[in-house]
Amino acid sequence: MLDRVLNAKSVAIIGASKNKTKRGYQAIKTLLADGFEGEIYPVNPKEDKILGLNCYKDITQIDAPIDLALITTPAGTIPDILRKCGEKKVAGAIIIAGGFRELGVKGKELELEAVSVAKQTGVRLIGPNTSGMINLKTNMNLVGIQNPPRGNIALLCQSGNMALTLITEATIRKHEGFTYYVGVGNESDIKFHEYLEFFRNDPETKAILMYVEGMSEGRKFLQEAHKTSIKKPIILLKSGRSATGKKSAGSHTGSLAGMSEVSNRAYGRAGIIVIENSDELFPVAETLSSQPPIKTNTIAILADGGGHATIAADLLSDYGINLPELSDTTKAKLREILPEAASVINPVDVAGGTDADPSLFADCAKIILKDPNVGGLLVVGLFGGYGIRFEESLAIGEEAAAHRFGAMVKKRHKPIFVHSLYSSYESRALDLLRHYGIPVHDSLDISCKCVASLCKYGNYLKSYHGKTNFVFNWRAKARKEGQQIIETAKKEGRHVLLEHEAKQLIQLHGAPTSVGQVAKNQEDAWAMASKIIGNRDRKDKVVLKIVSPDILHKSDACGVKLNLSSESEVKKSFQQIIKNAKAYNPDADIRGVLVAPMAAKGLEIIIGTKIDEQFGPVIMYGLGGIMVEIMKDVTFWVLPVSPVSCKKMLEDTRSSVLLGGVRGQKGYDKAALRKLISMCSELIESYPEIEEMDLNPVLLYEEGLDVVDARIILKK
Amino acid sequence: MLDRVLNAKSVAIIGASKNKTKRGYQAIKTLLADGFEGEIYPVNPKEDKILGLNCYKDITQIDAPIDLALITTPAGTIPDILRKCGEKKVAGAIIIAGGFRELGVKGKELELEAVSVAKQTGVRLIGPNTSGMINLKTNMNLVGIQNPPRGNIALLCQSGNMALTLITEATIRKHEGFTYYVGVGNESDIKFHEYLEFFRNDPETKAILMYVEGMSEGRKFLQEAHKTSIKKPIILLKSGRSATGKKSAGSHTGSLAGMSEVSNRAYGRAGIIVIENSDELFPVAETLSSQPPIKTNTIAILADGGGHATIAADLLSDYGINLPELSDTTKAKLREILPEAASVINPVDVAGGTDADPSLFADCAKIILKDPNVGGLLVVGLFGGYGIRFEESLAIGEEAAAHRFGAMVKKRHKPIFVHSLYSSYESRALDLLRHYGIPVHDSLDISCKCVASLCKYGNYLKSYHGKTNFVFNWRAKARKEGQQIIETAKKEGRHVLLEHEAKQLIQLHGAPTSVGQVAKNQEDAWAMASKIIGNRDRKDKVVLKIVSPDILHKSDACGVKLNLSSESEVKKSFQQIIKNAKAYNPDADIRGVLVAPMAAKGLEIIIGTKIDEQFGPVIMYGLGGIMVEIMKDVTFWVLPVSPVSCKKMLEDTRSSVLLGGVRGQKGYDKAALRKLISMCSELIESYPEIEEMDLNPVLLYEEGLDVVDARIILKK
Repeated sequence: MLDRVLNAKSVAIIGASKNKTKRGYQAIKTLLADGFEGEIYPVNPKEDKILGLNCYKDITQIDAPIDLALITTPAGTIPDILRKCGEKKVAGAIIIAGGFRELGVKGKELELEAVSVAKQTGVRLIGPNTSGMINLKTNMNLVGIQNPPRGNIALLCQSGNMALTLITEATIRKHEGFTYYVGVGNESDIKFHEYLEFFRNDPETKAILMYVEGMSEGRKFLQEAHKTSIKKPIILLKSGRSATGKKSAGSHTGSLAGMSEVSNRAYGRAGIIVIENSDELFPVAETLSSQPPIKTNTIAILADGGGHATIAADLLSDYGINLPELSDTTKAKLREILPEAASVINPVDVAGGTDADPSLFADCAKIILKDPNVGGLLVVGLFGGYGIRFEESLAIGEEAAAHRFGAMVKKRHKPIFVHSLYSSYESRALDLLRHYGIPVHDSLDISCKCVASLCKYGNYLKSYHGKTNFVFNWRAKARKEGQQIIETAKKEGRHVLLEHEAKQLIQLHGAPTSVGQVAKNQEDAWAMASKIIGNRDRKDKVVLKIVSPDILHKSDACGVKLNLSSESEVKKSFQQIIKNAKAYNPDADIRGVLVAPMAAKGLEIIIGTKIDEQFGPVIMYGLGGIMVEIMKDVTFWVLPVSPVSCKKMLEDTRSSVLLGGVRGQKGYDKAALRKLISMCSELIESYPEIEEMDLNPVLLYEEGLDVVDARIILKK
Repeated sequence: MLDRVLNAKSVAIIGASKNKTKRGYQAIKTLLADGFEGEIYPVNPKEDKILGLNCYKDITQIDAPIDLALITTPAGTIPDILRKCGEKKVAGAIIIAGGFRELGVKGKELELEAVSVAKQTGVRLIGPNTSGMINLKTNMNLVGIQNPPRGNIALLCQSGNMALTLITEATIRKHEGFTYYVGVGNESDIKFHEYLEFFRNDPETKAILMYVEGMSEGRKFLQEAHKTSIKKPIILLKSGRSATGKKSAGSHTGSLAGMSEVSNRAYGRAGIIVIENSDELFPVAETLSSQPPIKTNTIAILADGGGHATIAADLLSDYGINLPELSDTTKAKLREILPEAASVINPVDVAGGTDADPSLFADCAKIILKDPNVGGLLVVGLFGGYGIRFEESLAIGEEAAAHRFGAMVKKRHKPIFVHSLYSSYESRALDLLRHYGIPVHDSLDISCKCVASLCKYGNYLKSYHGKTNFVFNWRAKARKEGQQIIETAKKEGRHVLLEHEAKQLIQLHGAPTSVGQVAKNQEDAWAMASKIIGNRDRKDKVVLKIVSPDILHKSDACGVKLNLSSESEVKKSFQQIIKNAKAYNPDADIRGVLVAPMAAKGLEIIIGTKIDEQFGPVIMYGLGGIMVEIMKDVTFWVLPVSPVSCKKMLEDTRSSVLLGGVRGQKGYDKAALRKLISMCSELIESYPEIEEMDLNPVLLYEEGLDVVDARIILKK
């Protein structure tokens, strides 16, 4: 859909100018200088010609179809200009101007007006508040960053400066570049997920690099990301996670900075490689756009000194990458060619073995890459600098090794990474490596991060089967009876289900819970209780709880009585609860008292769902009591969750080890818990009316579980 | 003491050579080329002259005093050569050769022999297994790294490659360099702390940069670090923290990689700036060697685009740095000179205000640095690149701003940091900043890390008073009675104190505990118990526990009976415990049964001490039960701990919030807990015989506490 916009064959510059300091001049100049393959139409009512091109009074007067309009005029002019663009059947418009949502209420109104004009006229908007866009395939440079390098990475960026940073970095590193750059700006019309879909289908784009401050349609983005990352990697840095950062992002692109626990987990599930440090953003994208993913999560290190090897081993371990022991064959072969002092475990340390002839690096690499335990090779240390540091003639051996490295990666489909202290020096060997597409870095940290990202992406591809696609099938498994419970509440003007209603609803979908019965008077209460207590041998006891749509927090109203077993206790408690409730809220609509069996002691679990403003329905899971209240040891996942995800959720909190049984105890029924989480996912999918659900506590046993309290709030 | 070694005026090269590939040739060549200010004496029995210098058959034949010998010959020759060095009264020797401890048992024996010769002869050793050392003040370059830049940083490094990395980085960055480099190698004789002491007293050294794989005398190092970091900052990267890293470090310098929880905490307490990523090591050292520490923990950000500002705000928040709101005066003044779209909160975003004249950066900086809320300024974005990116003439405004930045830092003693995308380009403005000593980086991550380190160092200096100096005064407060308890155990050949002995010992030092009495038979037991139970109203109960030096884990032997209150219970339990103990270990030396009051329920705490192989006595604190067993939520501190440290220890675990009281409960007696920890520190200092102590559990109450069980193990 965005083809006519991002691959425009004709561009109108609205606000074209003869003033060299104006964007409307620079844009035309850059298009001419870069050799844009399409047509350029300056628009300015006051000029006849700009930079040798005919200038039009108005976009409607142009006697040819226009795909894209670059609008450089101030915010206030935008709605009218967009109307004319619509008249002209322009496919898309880039709005450079700031002064919209990011400047408060008035700006937001203006932005909404612009979007509404766009919707009516069918003109798609990039921005506002953007630095523009570049299509490097057609040399359509609408930003004015000079000589952006062409390559395989599509760049989606919510900050002009970050785009400039990344493009500058690519220019300095020389090897890799871009297919497109789009400055997303306020993302008021075209959304991140639409660009993603476009880049997924662009054959030249091999990786998508994103800088995000906040996005408005998180769930659709996850859905598109899920479809995209199986085909090509997405690398993303999300800023604005701190309070000050949020403030800054807010005044910057007027975006919402979402809860980072929710988003990082969700991005990971969609296969996105999330980056925390901006230094790593471009190198990781470069790596993922050009190297085969490592699916074994393993790497070998080849070093010409211990320090670098030790640091690299530390970092890779931190990232969870295995440094497997080399096979006996590999070790024996390395022993043959390396000096006695060399270490042939992984990391391999040549211990001076390469001093006389650095082409030995290639011999070592060949032996190591043949090892089936090894998914790739990281060379750390001085390679590429032997001719600089020691003796000029050594450069020849390095160059020979570089050629052989090139042949190896081609043959074995295992990546080689080279960390070299001499990466910023003139080194033919390193240039050769770059020519062969081998990533070269002068930072150990970045080399290791690139290796780790390639493993992470490989792990994702390997486990792709069973991943959710984040698509919600509303009313998927809704039941008539369930719907009726909700309708009843709505009819009564309630947006809260009563406890027994909520329990009926979850029971309907298979959750183990004792619904209980609502007693209207103390005789009823005892009649119901006595059935539960019934058989004295079972020692069952009952709990009484107030039932009122106006009393959400039953304990606060002293509306709960536990462990009751005699007629007098039950009757007295009934009276007391009613009395307390009336005292707590004289106007409360009291429906009665719920009589339910006391649950046996078990491990306390909390499950909750809510609607996240970016991602829609999300679920929270954790152990109850101090684990959630004090240790905040909970995990949030975007719904729906697959059975595999349920399993991972249970491993996602530190306290989850308690599920396995500790101090010699038997473990708890994890299968029942997973089933309950799946049920919650299904339930939320079935009833779009639900705003929030709390199952708290759920008591988990060696066998089975019991949802002791359930609260469901409907959307208003 | 190391003055004659590190500031040597005469150097003998033992193993001098005419072969250009040999170290014994290169060393002399480098000394000559660099213009070493002292005398050079080649030693080789087979040569007469090397590089124009007279060559000696033997070091003893040199007819002048020799301060330092560089020994380039293989490991096996070292002991004999050292003997001759001793004869010649050489102050120090650098042993380049590997093949010692790092190669196993045989190598270790050789190393011990060399060290023993050194001790006998008084020759101090650098290495073995080192790349050498450099004194840049006298041009004594004994490493062969070409043209190391001179400056104010002393470099202590346990990896030749890391030294080369750091020196290369300094060369590329141009501004800062080194006073000394010492390759510490296996640290077999001269220890890290001795070098530290030397550098502390060297007036030209402004900061000490360390790469450590493992150190042998951690406590002495902490003591010297404590004395040093108040005068000049120490920046340290400790590698070998992962299992694989340790393996690699082990085969590298044969060093012990210590427990990183213990060491990072201890380093921090000694004021050391601990670095995790090798990329940050040099920039942070450069910053700390040249910038005034920030004691307010605050910084302002000045940006010409939102993306960089947001990322920087995120990072600084992660580091715990405040970005304070600017004063109303500051904001008003900024408003006057910046366009309407600009943000004048912190971060300040000029929003295009500098496009026409980048000297406006200096106007903004001046206003911001005057603000008393602000401890320093971080400029992020394109500064230094306006002349490159936009219009050449803008470079003039940038240069003007650079000069004014220089004047400001001189006047205000507040540091300015500049992040510039154009840091690796030719930019006069950036060169000027470097000239004025203003740190310039092209990495936002590194800029922020530098700011954070300057704050961290400032915070340390501010809180220096009350820091422990890590000095242990053995027998500090030992009591005669305490000593007797230990002597009794030793006389009996025991290295375990019995529970009541351990409790007596801690009670002697003021710990609240019920020692109890040892009953030899059931009648005794009841007599003792009845006194405790005595008054029926108090409802006190007793606990019986087996007393045997051969049964450490009393519960495993079913040797504990709780909650006893009647004569029959007590007597029956006594019999049962003795029977169980005999069944558990028929050979056990059974001393009787301890009768003690049952402790009231309270919050379970665990305190333990042990001897760390690097740092000596350390203490562990945490909440008991699942917090320690499952959540591993404990903290380790090197002893002694000051009262201030005790307070920090209690804040150092996540679960410590429970101490403050939760769910509406009253809090616990933190003062009593701090006192107990202080007591443990004192106790360990008093009795050097103690190897391990466990107070587990300690029950903490709203008022007071009770050490319910105590175990003390003596050194063998």
